[in-house]
Order: sequence, then C-alpha cells, then structure tokens
Amino acid sequence: MMTTFLDTLKTPQDIKGMSLDQLEMLAGEIRTRIIETVNRNGGHLASPLGVVELTIALHYVFDTPEDKLIWDVGHQSYAHKLLTGRAGRFDTLRKRDGISGYPKISESRFDSFGTGHSSTSISAALGMAMARDHLGLHHHIAAVIGDGAMTGGMAFEAMNHAGHLGAKLLVILNDNEMSISRNVGALAHYFNQLITARPYKRAKQDVGSFVKTLIGNRITRTIQDFEKSVKGFITKGGLFQELGFNYIGPVDGHDLPLLIELLSSIKDMDGPVFLHCTTEKGKGLKAAEEDPLTYHGVKPMILGTDAGEGDAIPAKVKAPGADAAAVSFTDAFARALIELASRDPRIVGISAAMPTGTGLSKFEQAFPERSYDVGICEQHAVTFAAGLAAEGMRPVTALYSTFLQRGYDQLIHDVCLQSLPVVFAIDRAGLVGEDSPTQNGVFDLSYLRAVPNLRVLAPRDAADLALMLEWALSLNEPVALRYARSAAPDIGDTGNRDVRAAQRLREGDDLIFLTVGPCALAALNAAQLLAQEGISAGVVDARSIKPLDTAMLDSLRDAPLVTVEENTLNGGFGSAVLEYYEQSEQLHRVQICRAGLHDVFGDLATREEQLRMYGLDADSLAGMAREMLHRRVRTSLAD
Amino acid sequence: MMTTFLDTLKTPQDIKGMSLDQLEMLAGEIRTRIIETVNRNGGHLASPLGVVELTIALHYVFDTPEDKLIWDVGHQSYAHKLLTGRAGRFDTLRKRDGISGYPKISESRFDSFGTGHSSTSISAALGMAMARDHLGLHHHIAAVIGDGAMTGGMAFEAMNHAGHLGAKLLVILNDNEMSISRNVGALAHYFNQLITARPYKRAKQDVGSFVKTLIGNRITRTIQDFEKSVKGFITKGGLFQELGFNYIGPVDGHDLPLLIELLSSIKDMDGPVFLHCTTEKGKGLKAAEEDPLTYHGVKPMILGTDAGEGDAIPAKVKAPGADAAAVSFTDAFARALIELASRDPRIVGISAAMPTGTGLSKFEQAFPERSYDVGICEQHAVTFAAGLAAEGMRPVTALYSTFLQRGYDQLIHDVCLQSLPVVFAIDRAGLVGEDSPTQNGVFDLSYLRAVPNLRVLAPRDAADLALMLEWALSLNEPVALRYARSAAPDIGDTGNRDVRAAQRLREGDDLIFLTVGPCALAALNAAQLLAQEGISAGVVDARSIKPLDTAMLDSLRDAPLVTVEENTLNGGFGSAVLEYYEQSEQLHRVQICRAGLHDVFGDLATREEQLRMYGLDADSLAGMAREMLHRRVRTSLAD
Repeated sequence: MMTTFLDTLKTPQDIKGMSLDQLEMLAGEIRTRIIETVNRNGGHLASPLGVVELTIALHYVFDTPEDKLIWDVGHQSYAHKLLTGRAGRFDTLRKRDGISGYPKISESRFDSFGTGHSSTSISAALGMAMARDHLGLHHHIAAVIGDGAMTGGMAFEAMNHAGHLGAKLLVILNDNEMSISRNVGALAHYFNQLITARPYKRAKQDVGSFVKTLIGNRITRTIQDFEKSVKGFITKGGLFQELGFNYIGPVDGHDLPLLIELLSSIKDMDGPVFLHCTTEKGKGLKAAEEDPLTYHGVKPMILGTDAGEGDAIPAKVKAPGADAAAVSFTDAFARALIELASRDPRIVGISAAMPTGTGLSKFEQAFPERSYDVGICEQHAVTFAAGLAAEGMRPVTALYSTFLQRGYDQLIHDVCLQSLPVVFAIDRAGLVGEDSPTQNGVFDLSYLRAVPNLRVLAPRDAADLALMLEWALSLNEPVALRYARSAAPDIGDTGNRDVRAAQRLREGDDLIFLTVGPCALAALNAAQLLAQEGISAGVVDARSIKPLDTAMLDSLRDAPLVTVEENTLNGGFGSAVLEYYEQSEQLHRVQICRAGLHDVFGDLATREEQLRMYGLDADSLAGMAREMLHRRVRTSLAD
Repeated sequence: MMTTFLDTLKTPQDIKGMSLDQLEMLAGEIRTRIIETVNRNGGHLASPLGVVELTIALHYVFDTPEDKLIWDVGHQSYAHKLLTGRAGRFDTLRKRDGISGYPKISESRFDSFGTGHSSTSISAALGMAMARDHLGLHHHIAAVIGDGAMTGGMAFEAMNHAGHLGAKLLVILNDNEMSISRNVGALAHYFNQLITARPYKRAKQDVGSFVKTLIGNRITRTIQDFEKSVKGFITKGGLFQELGFNYIGPVDGHDLPLLIELLSSIKDMDGPVFLHCTTEKGKGLKAAEEDPLTYHGVKPMILGTDAGEGDAIPAKVKAPGADAAAVSFTDAFARALIELASRDPRIVGISAAMPTGTGLSKFEQAFPERSYDVGICEQHAVTFAAGLAAEGMRPVTALYSTFLQRGYDQLIHDVCLQSLPVVFAIDRAGLVGEDSPTQNGVFDLSYLRAVPNLRVLAPRDAADLALMLEWALSLNEPVALRYARSAAPDIGDTGNRDVRAAQRLREGDDLIFLTVGPCALAALNAAQLLAQEGISAGVVDARSIKPLDTAMLDSLRDAPLVTVEENTLNGGFGSAVLEYYEQSEQLHRVQICRAGLHDVFGDLATREEQLRMYGLDADSLAGMAREMLHRRVRTSLAD
C-alpha cells in the first residue's frame, strides 16, 4: 500500500508544510483509501470522492479544530476524517465501535457538529458563529452543503437569518454537476444557469495559472494582489445576494491551488459569504477504471448503487439470513404500488429525494406522470400530499422513518387533523444497521400513535404489505405503513390474510409473543427454541398498532404476554397494549413484558448485531420468555 | 346595525353583480363586522382587516368553491368567511360549536384547505394544482401567504417545487408594510427593497385611473388592452423569478379596482405566478378611531395585543378563576429567565416569531444582544440553538408546544443525539381554548418522551417554573419544560421546593392523584370535593415526566392511582407510569386509571369548557376517583 503521506499525518497542521505537488499526491492517496475502504466495509463513495480537494484546501487554509468545519449530511466527510488523525483507524469505518460514516462530536474534536440528516449545517454554523461573537472569540466557521441539501427549507431559513444577522460565516455550496439533472426543483435549474452562463472555466484558468506562478514549494496564504482576482468571481448569484450573502463563484472544486487561494482571501471577508464550488461526484473513479489492478473490486460495486441519493452502500447486498429469492420490503412495496396504481388512476407516488431507497423509482418507470420527487423537503412532501388528497387523488408518500420526523407537524396538522386519505409508506423503520444512529427509525410508533385519526400498520412480510397497502388505499383516511430495512421474512403460507385483524401464527399454552412487523420471525424462532425445552410459546402478529385488535387482546389477557417491537419502549406498541388493558380494566389480570429499545439512539453495528444488542433476536426473546415464566412461578408461590 | 349588503349575500357569486361603489361599501361593512365581533368574542383583528379588499377581489374574479383559495395560517380569513355564507353565524366566531377562527374543510365547502400553522399554503395549493391536472380539470388555485409565513422554509420548498413543475398556480404575497420592520430576516429586507425601490405607487395610479375610466357600474373582467398594463408590474423580483415564478408587483393591496383587474388578467397566465401585494395590517382602524361611538370598546383591546404575532386576542384577558395578582406561566418564565441571565452571560433566548407570546420580548428588552427572533422557522430555531450550545452558550428556545412539532427532527437529531444543553421552554402546552384545535399542544409529552437524552419537566406553578429553569440551565444536557396557556395556579407555600423530586401536596389514604403541571390544582380541588364525602384523596405532583421519580412511584404502588395530564393518553405521562410498573415487575400490584385526552384533536371552546369536556376539571377527576374506588370494591368482592 502507498501510504507515504496519509499515514504520517498526525493532525491537519501537518499538511500546511506541504508543497502543492505533495498536496495533490495526498489527494490521490485519500481517494485510494476511500475506495479501498468502502469496497471492503460499504459506505458512501461518490460524495466523499467529490470533495477531496475541497477538504484539503479547507484544512490547509483554516486552523482546525479552533476553526470549525460543519459537513452537511456528513457522508462526504471521509477525507476530513482521514486528515484529522483517523487514517490509522479508517479500516473500522461503519463497523461496531469503529469510525462513524458521519461527523460525530464524541468521535473527534475535529468533528465540531454531528450530522446525518440534511440541511442542518447552516443553522448549526450560524449558532456557532453567534456563540463565537458572544464569547469574544475570532475563529472561522465554514459549512459545506450539497446542492441537494440546499433545497431543504431549513437551509433557506438559516440563510435568511444569517443574512439578517450579517454574521461572519462561510457557506460552501458543493454543487455536483453530475447530480444536477437528477436534482429537483427550480433551485437546481438556477444552479445550472449560474454554471453554464458564466465563464467560470476561463476565469478559473486565468486565476489558476496566476496562482501557480506565485506559489512555489510552500503556498503562501497572504497574497494581497490576489484580492483583485477574487473580485472576478464575485458575480451576481442573485438569489443568494438577495438573502444577504456575498456570492462568489462558481469555481472548480477540484482545482486545489485555486481553492486554497480563494479560501485564503475570503476567510477574512466580513459578513456571510457564499462560495459556490462545482464538483464531480465520484471524481477519481475514471482513474480507477484505467488501473483496474490497483482498484480491483471497486467497479462492480459502484455500478448500480444509489450512493448519490444519500443512502450508503451496504457492505453486503443481501440481508444476512435471507435466501436468494427473498425480496426486501422496499421491493415488495414498489411491486404492490405499481400493481394497485395500474387499477386506480388516482394513486400517485411522492418521495423526498429517496426514489431508489423507497422503491419509488420503479413506480416512476411505470407511471412517470404520477410520480413526484420533491427533493429533500419532507415538510413539503407531506402537505403536498395533503393537497392532492383534498382534491380526490390517493397519494402515497414514501419516506424513511427517520426523515418523517421532519414532516411530523405536517402529518398532524395538514393530514390527520383533516383526516385526508394520505398513505405514508415508512421505510427504514426500526434499526438500520451500519449506516448511523442518526438514521435509525426507532421513534415512529411512539410519535405516530399520539396522532388522532391515523391508522398505523406494520406488515410482517411481503404478502401482508401488499394487502395492507391495498386496504389503506381503499380507506378514506390517513394510514401509516411501517416496515424495516431488511428482506421481508418468508414465514410461509399462514392461511388467514385478513390484514384488518391480528393473526395467530403459532399456538402456545405457556406464553404468547405479540409482535409488530418482521419481529414475528424472531418470535417464531424463539418459540422453536423454547419448544425444545418443553415450553409452549405462541406467536400473534398484531398487524395494526393503532387501533389495536382489542378482541384479540381480550382473548390473550390470561396468557403471559411478551410484546416485541423494533421501536423505543417509551410510548411504543407495548405501551399501547398496557394502555388498552388499563382502559378496559383488565390490567390486574395480565402479565406482560415488553421487548424493544430502552431509550437509546442505538450504536453503530450491523442490523443483526443491533438486534442482538437490544434484545430483539430469537435468543434474547427466548431468554426473556424463560425469565418471565420463572418470575410467574415465584410470584404465585409468594401469593 | 348597517347590514345592507353583507347579510343579503348567500354566496360569493352575489358580489359579481355589484358596482365598484357597492363593493367598497361592502368592504366597509366587513371591517365593521370584524371589529364588532372580535371586540366581543376575541380573535385576530389586524390580519383580517388587512386583506378585506384582496378577499373581495379574489371572490369577485374567481368562482369559488370550484376555484380554490388557500389562506396561509388562516387568521386572515374572516372576510372570506363573511363572504361565503357565514355572515349570519359570524357572531359565534371562536365559540363552542361556532365558526372557527381559521379555514376548516368541515365547516364550509369554500374552505378548501384547513390552516392554522404557518407556511403550508403553497404546498397544499401545489398538491391541489397537480390533482386538478391529473383529473383533467381547469379551475384556478390561489394561495394567500403573509410575508412572515414566507420566511418558513416549507414555503421555500414549495416555491422551488412549483417552479420546477411549472404548475399553473397563483401565490399572493400579503406583505404587511407595518410588519416589515418587525419581520425577521434578509427576506424581509428584500421585500422592503422591492417596495421602496420600485415606482409601484406611480404605476398603481396610472393603472388604477386607467381602470377606473374603463369600469362603470359593472366591472368587466375581459379588458384586452389591460394586458399591456400588467406588463408594467412584471418587474424583476429576482428571488422569485429565479425560483421559476412570474413575479408581478408590488401593488397596493387595498386598491380594489386595481386588484380586480390584475387578478382578471393574470388568472389565465400559464405556470406559477407570484403576485406581491402590500397591505396595512389593521387597515380601517383609523376610521374606527374617528368614530369612537360606533366602534366603542375596540381601541383599548387593540392596543397592547400582539395580534400581529399570530396569537389571537383572547376575549378575556385573565384566565377565569385566576385572581388579579396571578401571573401567567409565560410571565413567570420571562421573569425567571431575565433573573438567571443577569447572573450567567452564557444564557441566550431564541424565539420563532412569537417573542411576546413566549415572554421573550421582555427578555429582549433586558438583553437585546442575547435575544434572537429567527422568524417562523422552528426547524432553524432548534438547530441554531444546538450550534450555540455546542460552542458553550446556554440557549433557551421558547416555542409553543404545537410549533415544536415542526422542530421535532432537529430536537432529536441535532440536540438530543448529541446531548447538547439546549433548554426548550414549551409554552401553550395542553389545551389552548378558543384559538383552534390546530393550536392545541396535546402531543408533546408523547413525542418528547420517546427521545433519548431528553429530560422533560412540567412546573405546576410560578415558583417551580423558576426553580426548574434554574436547574435546567445548570445541567449539561437537553431539558424540556412544558407549561400551559394559563395563569400559574397559586397553590400556596408547599414547603419542599426541591424540583428534582416529585412532591406530595396532600396526603390521602384512599387514593392518590399523580399529576403533571397545573393539573395539580384541579386534583387538589377534586380531593377537597371527595373529602366532603369521606374519601381521603392525596395529591402528588410528579414534576418530572422523564425520568420519573421512581422512588416516589415505588412508594405509591399500593394505593389506587389516578394519573392526570393535559396530553393525549397515547404514550403520555400515564403510559410512562404504566411502563415503569411493568419494567419494575410491580404491575400486578398496582391499580391505576389515567386521566387525559382520549385521542382527539379537541374542539373549539374556552379552556375551561375544554377541561370539562375532556374530564380534566375537579368535578370530573372526583367522579373518576369515585368510580375507581367502587370498582376496586367490586373487584375485591369478586376475588
């Protein structure tokens, strides 16, 4: 392995003594390391490769960690991690106890603000800038945000406020030319106009060569004359200027000397500055193609991924334990939606910048006129759906559980208060594995259960998902379907497919597992383990979390019950069961234990490791059942 | 009463035959009716008065309800309600079973989309526009949005998407000149620039007089030549044009003939159109001042209100039942915050366009440099606070419970996941009375309890609030304080003021009320009622909802318990108590009933009526206790 520069770096201060040639070699090393590591561990690839030069330039010009860098969404922060003392441990990327795929305050003092969800960086940076001013400090603060993330309304809110405050703050737009055509909205069109209408390439060459004549081995950061050149880049960028920013750009985000000189010059500008860089996602992969030996194994994995969508590349394509024929819940959803839409022209699909991750890209292929990708705009996605529903359409809004958090008020206020027939297809509900704790969807059962007029369903397998979606679309009310980031378990033909009621999947005399969604499979496996010890455990799939199947609950009240859910135990499904027995005055009769997440965000690990860590695998459930039965014996002896 | 026109209107079609003079008289009648009604019932005043001409012009030009009008936030919709068959019932405004202060689908087919929270109208309108196109219909859709609401990121998301889709859609900016100075952000500055830099007054006069020469008794809607004049208004409005809208304006929003002609001309323009109207909030109140007899009683109420802030004027200033000396929780919070901030320079206050409603305007007077009003931007408010906290400040973010729903993801992802010391001062938690069900804050205990690392406290009175705030600011972690829209009850000196633990406020042998916040007062009153019947009921103030005071819960397990909270029963405080007894294996010992909201949004009524309707007044709690004790007797007889 070529490790000359990268592995000798202790802190980013070490790059300040490097020549331009050395920095460009370092960029090459960083790319190689990222490609190798992602190839092995999974992770984001295109985004991190696009900002290698920008990251080097930022660390060259600014003095981190005193100066603060905030990486929006954060999956582009790999180069930042490699430059800030984490090269030696980078092989643990996205592994349990390893390096997170996103900035994380607790991981490094160079990670000044944790990210994972989009469009937060300008707000955080502005707060940090005001804190600096309050405390009488004078360090620099820069946020790096992608063109997709700029479409999030929160970024606009922060820009508006920053312009108003006139805070000294640098916002760097990482504008991926490759992604513009896929990007959504008038803003993307506007970026494109800025790029194509301006002679930025010519300007770049002029200034670039100008810079190159000035810099020798050591790039000086105080070239007074350069100020003049910067002015050439301060063009109109009307939208941002009207929000109170000094707009500079667009500039080539891979031109290292240019970036260094620009950043050196603008770092001392007063007030908010907006630097527009154009970059190429996946920059450097062509080189990899030309040298297949060095980059062995990278190409097949890169093709066919949707790394551009903010979804990490999994290390393994298949969910472990799933057989080759198993479909994911996501695929099952897409199939069912296409089938239903072919019969009902009122059905439209809405996604928020995650068409592939939610399966809606397949729907879009089938029904391009009835598919909407609104960009990273969950708030708008939900109320847009409400508007469609109010006028007679049947919108299906497909979001990840963790991102629906951003549309919570709209779900309450615009959909459920008016009881409009919007179907929420909630993907990535539960633990998401190696991505990041920021992406876990472990709160939705609690926050959705609180909302009146909303029906909340959880399919255990692909067949139930299709039937639930059909049922949801036949109702004239809001419905949420939540399912996991996993292969849909194959539980086999279980007879009853009336998804309106809970279903007994296995009879049992000693206790009952009452489960949500794919937890049914773990419970069935637990029941098999217990059977070997002579314990007869039944499994009931609740199917509906809200409302509950109260007839089923009445019939279960005399059996010890273990509720099982991939959600926090605070206010989740198990709590709903407790609430029902309280309200129906049966609480004194029941014996109940709740399996789920104990008020934690979850740690980085594979999904299987996480399920084990949080007591949701078959072994843990069997253990919980055993303990409960022992306790029952103790209690009755004590009575 | 002068009722010539208004009371004869059956539908808005009836105004189409009116002359301009008649329409202007109608505008006067509408103003009078609004002022009279708000004077009697409470409600918003400045906003509705500002859009009277605009509302008339919209109904004159468009054919509602086939054409759709969406009123952002909705408190400016009184004139719309008066014109759409509700003049006869308008005296029931904001009363139980009466006319809502906001558009409401179930109230009228002319209310095409319900509102209450800000910045939703463009999303809803865009959804409705796409539904129209899918269904092959051709009606018009217009959203009316204020300059404050335009700062909400969701509005930007919707503009960006509308520009991308090129949907035929009219967005009308109701830009209150009066409020510009108070409005927050670079956007407000931009609006101001548009207004002052352009000769809109001259243009207005030209076109206005041009129109007036053309129209006689009946205003014709098809003046071809007028197209040319419209072009005079299509000026740059760069920000909106860059988002893909045709920008028209600014125009005088009180010039009825001008509005009618502009709307008539632009209604058939293709694609998204942005019409910028400048209006005066409270337009017409000067006339009222000149005629004090007719408008008796209006003036004193109008002064000193913060109607411009989106908070309705209450019909009564005092919370009924509160003595003259009682302070509101809001005032108690402001006092405590100012006191604490005078000792700790790290404390800063953040509000989202509700400085008066949250009490932060008082803080701002004391500490202007440490006070931030970020505009109607709850998402940004929360992450901005996280940024401040990450760098050593102690931000206190004061929001209404219902609006914190819009910052839920940021609370989870930016504050609690990183365990940053942000204090959330959550006002208007619980039932808010006559405002609207959209404004009730009855979900926060459920959605906050689900979030790891967050401490959730509820003060029962002003003294506890101050101590809890002090404690919260001394901790290095996120804390939420939630309190009601009411006078803080005066429970008297209760000795123990250690707010870290639950407190027994009254001893009792037969049962215990376990209460959250000001519910303690209702429980104490219930206990007094029960004492008259020989039932000895105790009262314990839980103080902390998360974590629970488990030592107290252990000590209470053998008494019948009634939990009392102003929150949904789905996942709220009572559920937390059930969960604790389950987790600690004590569930079989306890007898418990939960008082709270049964999965409803709440109906329009006074706060006192609401508390009675939902079983949270003293009488209801006493009844619940009685029934529980009877049941206990029955159960033990059955055993």
